[in-house]
Amino acid sequence: MSINTIPIADNHRLSLPTIDMPPRILLGAGPSNSHPRVFAAMIAPTVGHLDPTFIRVMDEVSELLRYAWQTDNEFTIATSGTGSSAMEAAFANVVEPGDRVLVGVNGYFGRRMVDMAGRYGADVRCLEVTWGEAFTLEAIRQGMETHRPQVLALVHAETSTGVRQPLDGLSELCREHDCLLLVDTVTSLGGVPLHVDAWGLDIAYSGSQKCLSAPSGVAPITFGPRALTKIHNRRTPIANWYMNAELLGKYWAGSPRAYHHTAPMHLFYALREGLRLVAEEGLAERWARHQATAEAFWAGLEELGLTPHVPREIRLPSLTTVRVPEGVDAAAVSRRLLTEYNIEIAGGLGDLAGKVWRVGLMGYNARRETVAVLLRALAEVL
Amino acid sequence: MSINTIPIADNHRLSLPTIDMPPRILLGAGPSNSHPRVFAAMIAPTVGHLDPTFIRVMDEVSELLRYAWQTDNEFTIATSGTGSSAMEAAFANVVEPGDRVLVGVNGYFGRRMVDMAGRYGADVRCLEVTWGEAFTLEAIRQGMETHRPQVLALVHAETSTGVRQPLDGLSELCREHDCLLLVDTVTSLGGVPLHVDAWGLDIAYSGSQKCLSAPSGVAPITFGPRALTKIHNRRTPIANWYMNAELLGKYWAGSPRAYHHTAPMHLFYALREGLRLVAEEGLAERWARHQATAEAFWAGLEELGLTPHVPREIRLPSLTTVRVPEGVDAAAVSRRLLTEYNIEIAGGLGDLAGKVWRVGLMGYNARRETVAVLLRALAEVL
Repeated sequence: MSINTIPIADNHRLSLPTIDMPPRILLGAGPSNSHPRVFAAMIAPTVGHLDPTFIRVMDEVSELLRYAWQTDNEFTIATSGTGSSAMEAAFANVVEPGDRVLVGVNGYFGRRMVDMAGRYGADVRCLEVTWGEAFTLEAIRQGMETHRPQVLALVHAETSTGVRQPLDGLSELCREHDCLLLVDTVTSLGGVPLHVDAWGLDIAYSGSQKCLSAPSGVAPITFGPRALTKIHNRRTPIANWYMNAELLGKYWAGSPRAYHHTAPMHLFYALREGLRLVAEEGLAERWARHQATAEAFWAGLEELGLTPHVPREIRLPSLTTVRVPEGVDAAAVSRRLLTEYNIEIAGGLGDLAGKVWRVGLMGYNARRETVAVLLRALAEVL
Repeated sequence: MSINTIPIADNHRLSLPTIDMPPRILLGAGPSNSHPRVFAAMIAPTVGHLDPTFIRVMDEVSELLRYAWQTDNEFTIATSGTGSSAMEAAFANVVEPGDRVLVGVNGYFGRRMVDMAGRYGADVRCLEVTWGEAFTLEAIRQGMETHRPQVLALVHAETSTGVRQPLDGLSELCREHDCLLLVDTVTSLGGVPLHVDAWGLDIAYSGSQKCLSAPSGVAPITFGPRALTKIHNRRTPIANWYMNAELLGKYWAGSPRAYHHTAPMHLFYALREGLRLVAEEGLAERWARHQATAEAFWAGLEELGLTPHVPREIRLPSLTTVRVPEGVDAAAVSRRLLTEYNIEIAGGLGDLAGKVWRVGLMGYNARRETVAVLLRALAEVL
């Protein structure tokens, strides 16, 4: 049959109403609600991906990310994908086949790192502790001596457990071993104290939809000088095109800027606004707000007879795991909060499935009023 | 220095005004302007990536994509990245190291296919013709016989040249050779006649920001049964996590849906609206509108003494390459259109750099009024 006479089939031609999404209060593991100003920014007019006005937006995003991360790293950009795409960018660029990568696995995202590093040919070694615990510096030191890795990968803020991994002392340890320090900061950037340069992180990445209060779909990543040296001296091509740091670098900072992909500009407008809110508020004030909000929530949990899963000294303010009391159907509680109160909280993942709820108080949602509505609704449902 | 006493540096703490982007008329190679209804849909409230209401949106997007592509393929989704991410998804999933991939290179995006397929270990072979020409069925048949590829990759709508590659007869040829037919439809889906099933395409992908009139950042992709069989029978793991069809399939159609990444839901709201507009208008009407708009533009070019680069029988309606007349500074013309008229057109890429302008009349912008403003502005500038 000639192309011009092929009939058009209508069997998939849905007739749909205008979109109508419920007004959720997003207190799960992310996405979190964006600040209202972010939506206003997001629908600024579309421009081309090499328009001089868009290049200025990219530069502003880079600079504001440097502030949020406390880094002078020149290579500080956002990938055109979600936080997991930035995790993949981290491994795809610095790992060569056969490299030993030591991953601290104390939750779901550590496991994901193992999966990704393996897909890029790494000889993956694991450090493990129970989900809900952090690694001691001593345990990491022993792991480094045993495995002699080229990359040490840790999750600063484990979204699956609510653990904050202390990073003190790792910079020196990694430099002694000529090892890169790669850290997941998806649930900490913009909400939890984090100093990329002072802590000596060589690679860090994050997401837009957690403590930065923007929609998901673009994901910050920064490579320090030691990481860039490793990338430039690779013996093998980077086995990924879309997340390729060399090609992304030419788009973000080349002279002239070289086309790589058609950036999702509206998400960059949104991220710029989320980061602008961080700069306006100030990091010290923002970290303090997240901490104070979390403490108010923890006090309220205690009143309800509920217990956080993670000890206070390594507990994240941005994400709290709450133990499900004996005899309570965790999923039924989440479902009632969603359907009766429009509140989303998350269930446990992996080893903690069914055992905890996960409550995120991130960015715009790290406010006393969101804590109040959640505590009251929880009290009514339980 | 203890973590709590590290001072916060303010050297990157920019103080910025509210975002203010110029109201461009986007008549380049994409992004195109979105339909106004798309922006209204895009800022519907955020919900979780596993919220039942979002899963419904995903299902609707899949079904409307089946209509737009004229396919019954169950695996019809959108990746959470731009069109280039979908190109990478296509190769990453169906190519195993050592597979022979025959790529038709008659423009920039064919070259990109060569690059990507190579990063996944393919033994890449090329068919080449001059930029601005298409491949004949006979040339492709000879290439198939010479190279015996496992995958034949072609660009249906070459955005760098404006060529529409005829696809008649390839289905039979590829089946005879037990070869998958992989086709880039970035600049054709929703604007140019395209029948995935009737033409026997095994893998097709596209972008959201061309003829679908939505912002960039999510990218349709469809795998037919022969492609899925190849994926399921791989001997090696898929060397990509974010674009992994198995993991994406569990998120888009698993029972229950399995978390993979935090979908950029606002871009999916936007894509749903763009696709809803396609279904409302109807494919036949939409293809005819693109053709009629392009013909009006071509007639106007002739009046201005300008010549399309591509012969009419293989010329795309969605993207026209216009030859730069002798003695004219192509970049200066584009710059004046941008700064004086807020009109973006694109320059030539690769072999056609400096030799052509590229004019896109796509989706919402395939209208007589956009042709009118461009023709008048061109007349004034030239």
